[in-house]
Amino acid sequence: MIERLSIVGVGLIGGSLALAARERGLVGEIVGYGRRRETLELARKRGAIDRIAATLPEAAAGADVVLLAAPVGSCAALARELRPHAPSNALLTDVGSVKAPLVAELEAAWGAGAVVGAHPIAGSEQTTVAAARADLFVGRRCILTPTPRTRPDAVTTVRRLWEGVGALVEEMDAERHDALLARVSHAPHLIAYALVDAVASWTHGAEALARAGSGFADTTRVAGSAPELWRDVLLANAPAVREALREFRQSLAAMEAAIAAGDAAALEVALERARAARGRLGGAS
Amino acid sequence: MIERLSIVGVGLIGGSLALAARERGLVGEIVGYGRRRETLELARKRGAIDRIAATLPEAAAGADVVLLAAPVGSCAALARELRPHAPSNALLTDVGSVKAPLVAELEAAWGAGAVVGAHPIAGSEQTTVAAARADLFVGRRCILTPTPRTRPDAVTTVRRLWEGVGALVEEMDAERHDALLARVSHAPHLIAYALVDAVASWTHGAEALARAGSGFADTTRVAGSAPELWRDVLLANAPAVREALREFRQSLAAMEAAIAAGDAAALEVALERARAARGRLGGAS
Repeated sequence: MIERLSIVGVGLIGGSLALAARERGLVGEIVGYGRRRETLELARKRGAIDRIAATLPEAAAGADVVLLAAPVGSCAALARELRPHAPSNALLTDVGSVKAPLVAELEAAWGAGAVVGAHPIAGSEQTTVAAARADLFVGRRCILTPTPRTRPDAVTTVRRLWEGVGALVEEMDAERHDALLARVSHAPHLIAYALVDAVASWTHGAEALARAGSGFADTTRVAGSAPELWRDVLLANAPAVREALREFRQSLAAMEAAIAAGDAAALEVALERARAARGRLGGAS
Repeated sequence: MIERLSIVGVGLIGGSLALAARERGLVGEIVGYGRRRETLELARKRGAIDRIAATLPEAAAGADVVLLAAPVGSCAALARELRPHAPSNALLTDVGSVKAPLVAELEAAWGAGAVVGAHPIAGSEQTTVAAARADLFVGRRCILTPTPRTRPDAVTTVRRLWEGVGALVEEMDAERHDALLARVSHAPHLIAYALVDAVASWTHGAEALARAGSGFADTTRVAGSAPELWRDVLLANAPAVREALREFRQSLAAMEAAIAAGDAAALEVALERARAARGRLGGAS
């Protein structure tokens, strides 16, 4: 049991974790800190947090675990501001979609042993606490990326928290995490944003968007995600994202070549191979 | 009221139209023809069709309207086979996702005045009659692409059929239809197929696919569609699809350039512009 959990950034992920942890009795007190007072009031009203911290030092004070659920690009600065005010043995964890560069920065800011990088693979394009739900993580994967410097008891505490809210926890090297997520999340987000942008920028874009069916809506759903969050993720994981884009362009070019050549057989084989591969998606779809 | 409607290809679209037309009393008799006997038996069992035609001539015989709901690439040959056996004043219509080249072929095969190209923008990656539903077209657009040669009464008959099953019918030039659909449907399908293919082809593809979240599942949902159908659509509309891909690559390259330059402000502006544009999607999402 964690006596006091401080959540910095009470949006969809931070808020859902708070709701779930309270519902399951995994924490004593949950303190929330965030940029917008009205979000924090809503989080308290929804029963996600017990108490609002008015300042970062207040959020850090007496915390056993500090959980950063803020945009990836803000986390290192928050860790530096929080550190002097937190108990010396407090753990720091996060929920960022990029792990290697972020965990390195957090270790530098907080002290290596007590930092546990985490990434729950759950969420939606709705990112506010209004959309938070206690069952968001049930059956979803949560990847922990401890380093050789991480204290084993710190990993155990964070693992128990995520397992406690129903997630399937696995540990993985941070670089491997970033390479995998670049392929199945980061690059696909950029592709979805670019697809909407291309249509909207076209001469008859408005007419086309008005005639889009449910397929286009699904394909581009993640382009409804908060630009502020994805800007940070894409920049932090730039090398792997660009490698994933290179691979994607190669697959697209091969399929387009079959179209250009009018090669029906080659095109059908390529489409069928992709369709079959999609059947191997994780159960979390 | 159509006395006898013959549906050639009783899958999701043909089957749903049949269910809806019967439920709403828009037709006297519905005759179904298809490649697979078991599909036709299921269509009859589900109440979509009254009678199974064992052969194409039998499907054509006595039909007031022949509706082709087969893969785009098969329609012209079917029209040629059906024509000699259909009443001379019978109408021919279709549901293909590509219109200009197909309608030209159908007019050549059937006689121009009695051909009405149609495209109901509805469906899913489920393409069999098992997934057919009478409400599939309610509130969805259906685009008709009459030519200067089409008889006005033929357009009226087909319009009444689609309006009768709840679709929002509009008429449009076939080339314009193909340009719009290349942007919001055909190219996005190819992009989704290519995205899955790129991940599956990557060294750690299986590991990555197993960790894909709901975002990737949505982005690539249409890559679960039947390759046989999309092969035909992509080949039939190749010039517009390739133009749409060119525009997409340009948007993607601009966003990647911002990532490569580490330009957070430019990247956020581009993502936000796309997010905002997505808000202008048709209500049919």
